[in-house]
Amino acid sequence: MSNLSIDSDRLIARLKELGDIGRTGDGKLVRLAASDADRLGRDKFVIWANAAGLDVRIDRIGNIFALWADTANAHEAPIMLGSHIDTVIDAGIYDGSYGVLAGLEVIETLKQAGFSPRQPLVVAAFTNEEGVRFAPDMMGSLVYAGGLAADTALCVIGTDGSRLGAELERIGYAGSEEPGFLKPAAYLELHIEQGPVLEREGLSLGAVENLQGISWQRITVEGIANHAGTTPMAMRHDAGYAAAAIIEFLHDRASLSRSGTVATVGCISFEPNAINVIPARAVFTVDLRDPDELRLLAEEQVLADELERLAAKEGVAITAERLARFEPVTFDSKLVEHIEAAAAARGLTSRRMTSGAGHDAQMISRIAPAAMIFVPSMGGVSHSPKEFTLAADLIAGANVLLDVVRRLASL
Amino acid sequence: MSNLSIDSDRLIARLKELGDIGRTGDGKLVRLAASDADRLGRDKFVIWANAAGLDVRIDRIGNIFALWADTANAHEAPIMLGSHIDTVIDAGIYDGSYGVLAGLEVIETLKQAGFSPRQPLVVAAFTNEEGVRFAPDMMGSLVYAGGLAADTALCVIGTDGSRLGAELERIGYAGSEEPGFLKPAAYLELHIEQGPVLEREGLSLGAVENLQGISWQRITVEGIANHAGTTPMAMRHDAGYAAAAIIEFLHDRASLSRSGTVATVGCISFEPNAINVIPARAVFTVDLRDPDELRLLAEEQVLADELERLAAKEGVAITAERLARFEPVTFDSKLVEHIEAAAAARGLTSRRMTSGAGHDAQMISRIAPAAMIFVPSMGGVSHSPKEFTLAADLIAGANVLLDVVRRLASL
Repeated sequence: MSNLSIDSDRLIARLKELGDIGRTGDGKLVRLAASDADRLGRDKFVIWANAAGLDVRIDRIGNIFALWADTANAHEAPIMLGSHIDTVIDAGIYDGSYGVLAGLEVIETLKQAGFSPRQPLVVAAFTNEEGVRFAPDMMGSLVYAGGLAADTALCVIGTDGSRLGAELERIGYAGSEEPGFLKPAAYLELHIEQGPVLEREGLSLGAVENLQGISWQRITVEGIANHAGTTPMAMRHDAGYAAAAIIEFLHDRASLSRSGTVATVGCISFEPNAINVIPARAVFTVDLRDPDELRLLAEEQVLADELERLAAKEGVAITAERLARFEPVTFDSKLVEHIEAAAAARGLTSRRMTSGAGHDAQMISRIAPAAMIFVPSMGGVSHSPKEFTLAADLIAGANVLLDVVRRLASL
Repeated sequence: MSNLSIDSDRLIARLKELGDIGRTGDGKLVRLAASDADRLGRDKFVIWANAAGLDVRIDRIGNIFALWADTANAHEAPIMLGSHIDTVIDAGIYDGSYGVLAGLEVIETLKQAGFSPRQPLVVAAFTNEEGVRFAPDMMGSLVYAGGLAADTALCVIGTDGSRLGAELERIGYAGSEEPGFLKPAAYLELHIEQGPVLEREGLSLGAVENLQGISWQRITVEGIANHAGTTPMAMRHDAGYAAAAIIEFLHDRASLSRSGTVATVGCISFEPNAINVIPARAVFTVDLRDPDELRLLAEEQVLADELERLAAKEGVAITAERLARFEPVTFDSKLVEHIEAAAAARGLTSRRMTSGAGHDAQMISRIAPAAMIFVPSMGGVSHSPKEFTLAADLIAGANVLLDVVRRLASL
């Protein structure tokens, strides 16, 4: 059994089959949380899990768990694999589904090979990771980790006016287990990178050692509207210019950072937004991320100081409103070492890396040692039908997951 | 007659009376070109002109001329005073109306005083200077100066779907004179500054020696949308950052200019305009103005070079589309000297200055020596109910206009 590998044809076929569920009339993949399409995807996963002889459990927030336990190990905390199968609108087929189906594949492979794990193995499909229909995102794992009361989450009203609890009941996935009912000994999530780093560096795999903290702010600059022709430059209080100066400041500072700080201004608007009127008001968003909480706090302070300096210099008023804030997550170093070792043993090139996006693993890390494995995303593209990962990379990632689970369950 | 002055009470009363015409239900002044409100304002001006014994003529584009000619001077080219009485939406009462009513006041004062001008004197109220309802702005004077065919202008469709020609007929101001029928020997326009310079410098009057050229462009930056968390700074092609860098470049360059260049970015939009997505596209406008054509051309070239440099540096595509372009206008130096001398003779502080806004004078300067006189605008505000000029300044400006006309008509 030393050369055990997953059934690559089965994994790839299932990825494609699940990826065909939830197509709209014009072929777009839309499997929003707790929708009819999501039900069809969940049903498919449950059928495969049952066929593999796994015990399917569903909790009150609709998280699905496919468990392999036996009388010998049932008293042990399980090793949990997982991700999500809900999607964004016009999605690709890999984001989330890959982690769930690879988790199933790993357990099924070990079971069929007659492996006898020291602990139960379980693969989880968490509810509403994308957060497109119901806010917040990563909801199922957040509830599971105790970060949000299930009853509160079930009352959330979606963008279409529906209530999550009612929708879960309607699609048959309002389960009876209390979220958190299985406390994992370890949690592993395999995911596409959704970024360009592995592809650019020609690497097969990322051992994800941490996940960036996120700071979202909305900045409002209040200047004075005035005539673009008759107002000398020195007499202006140009809210648009102040906004541009802040955008450039953030970008240039993050670009010089050697510690992985990233800064993005994605939204902007000017008022009155007329070609010949100096903007009286500029509103824009700031997305600041850093894997280190102290550095993220420091970057927030540097921005606040710059806003103050610029307000005084330009004679404008600047206010910042916090929209979201998540602390960085540091994954379990032992698990990261296991991932690196498993990759090396398979002859795969890898690097340690930071996740720039949020994942269920960051929530589960609150209650268990956790880590993630990334495989390359072509062009760094995701949340798009252009999302693509080579089959060889998908298979390699699943085999590394297999090896890590086998190692953990043998200790 | 050496100490002749205008009837200041009459001028101020007429300004207020005209300013009350065209108020909406909630008290806003809206006298858009060729509207019912414009008709009422025109009627009022015509009644005053007739009462002053002037001969009212209307041309095909609706420009109104109130002429004082006699058999002795009717063969001479007239001295023309003028401006406009149409307004923007929610306007102040001074912009345009002041120049028309002060012109009427000057002629009426000279006539009542028994002055005998060498040339006819005429005050013009040009159609549609503001351009809010029908494009382009300064339309009446542009047509009058031969820059746009009257028949073309009359076919322009307004923002409300109406045709200018039909509207002029409806309100009774589709005249029979051919635009340009009176070729002025000189044109003088008295106007509020619409900028902050005179007030800031504590001066009573501006002798306007030139008018900025205007270059309007729409710049489109095409980058690549990507995840704000997973895309390292060095791998970005951020259209929003490129836009911000251009805004800062333009502003900082114009601020260092000692020649009166001004640069404004008034409109902007990002796509997809999502907080956690690097902008794929940024579109913004550039309003560049300079009183010197060669410098304006040079500034346009500097911008074009910067766009090219930045496109290469950031890996984005940048295109510029010309929206409008007007060459600077240099007013008649002799007229400017007369204005300065008249101000000094009245003990008024003045300076030579550049007009940052467009005015009918820039069109009439194509067919006659022209100049403008500015009076202070409180706070530089115009196109707003807050537009305000002290009565003392309004009276002083009209008296300087009186003195200049008297001087020219005595030569």
